[in-house]
Amino acid sequence: MYTLYYSPGSASMAVHAALIEAGVPYDLEMLDFQHGEQRTSAYLRLNPQGTVPTLLIDGKPAFESAALLMTLAERHPQADLAPGPGSPLRPAWHQWMVYLSNNLGATFRFWFYPSDLGADEHPDAVRRALQQKIEAAWECLDGELSANGPYLLGERFSTADLLLAMYMRWSRNMPRPATSWPALDRLALLVRQRPSWKRMTELEGLTDWTLMA
Amino acid sequence: MYTLYYSPGSASMAVHAALIEAGVPYDLEMLDFQHGEQRTSAYLRLNPQGTVPTLLIDGKPAFESAALLMTLAERHPQADLAPGPGSPLRPAWHQWMVYLSNNLGATFRFWFYPSDLGADEHPDAVRRALQQKIEAAWECLDGELSANGPYLLGERFSTADLLLAMYMRWSRNMPRPATSWPALDRLALLVRQRPSWKRMTELEGLTDWTLMA
Repeated sequence: MYTLYYSPGSASMAVHAALIEAGVPYDLEMLDFQHGEQRTSAYLRLNPQGTVPTLLIDGKPAFESAALLMTLAERHPQADLAPGPGSPLRPAWHQWMVYLSNNLGATFRFWFYPSDLGADEHPDAVRRALQQKIEAAWECLDGELSANGPYLLGERFSTADLLLAMYMRWSRNMPRPATSWPALDRLALLVRQRPSWKRMTELEGLTDWTLMA
Repeated sequence: MYTLYYSPGSASMAVHAALIEAGVPYDLEMLDFQHGEQRTSAYLRLNPQGTVPTLLIDGKPAFESAALLMTLAERHPQADLAPGPGSPLRPAWHQWMVYLSNNLGATFRFWFYPSDLGADEHPDAVRRALQQKIEAAWECLDGELSANGPYLLGERFSTADLLLAMYMRWSRNMPRPATSWPALDRLALLVRQRPSWKRMTELEGLTDWTLMA
């Protein structure tokens, strides 16, 4: 039914965890980025961007982590990964899914790929500005979680928390990791305690990331 | 029922057009960016990022254009702004909504706000790299529309086309405007012929943008 093209610890993590949450059968296809497997013509036919994840849904490829998470939540309502259409929490679910992707996802891409900004390495001013932009997102999200948490939708876990935990993990070697913010640290702990997250990290061969609390 | 906080020609355009498509009553609140009205404490309480659009939905603020478009499509199914949950086109709808926001939306933000990269003005290498990233998105989208158009979901108009037309308009003063790509030009023409788009441009006081065809 599903095939996930992934690379360990990359943008495919959250979708991988969601497949486990949904309890559906899926195949895994690992791409070796060191050997440029995301740039083969066979893979570019599935995903013209050459990014991960790509998810085959009944044989048809789709991409963009936040989009795949929304699709999985809708296709497997029994897993309760999102408030259903018509729920009063639905606008906030859409909002945080897009916010995370648009702010953290896009900015991390520039952070990790200086070539996307025409450089081999970021000049200090650019590095500082990108760091500030990422930290501003942590500040915004921590404010939301402090006021209305512990999850992005309050008492209710959703795919937005999986996506957030994934981006938080990417910050672990930054000057101020996301876990420096207390409400974010609590969110990360809640997500990492889930059987789906544990199983995903085992299958991808990932280490846990340092607890600040 | 709805109040849209907007600025003419900005990221609120697509949501504004969708409100008209939905045929629902709404109030408009214009923010004067020249006078920093997006930075007042009253507005930041609605939207901590100080961006537009913000949409009050039954009195509750939500933000992120792509998210608001998805919410409106779901709340007003009679307007047929998206394939419904369970439709075979649903994964592609999610994909393009997130792709547009994450690639074009985020990159245009850096393009228009050099301060987000710590500069008063982009150095040439950065400007070229951002331009290339935007043009790579046009290339990907034009390929999709050439093969499977005329809309992003084939024969079927959706909110993804409104979002795409908005970003296309933002490129009109770039070295290669999006309308230089034939299938994109056709898409823009289809969207601009819609009564909703015409009404939105009238209400926001916008000029049409140059036809390349």
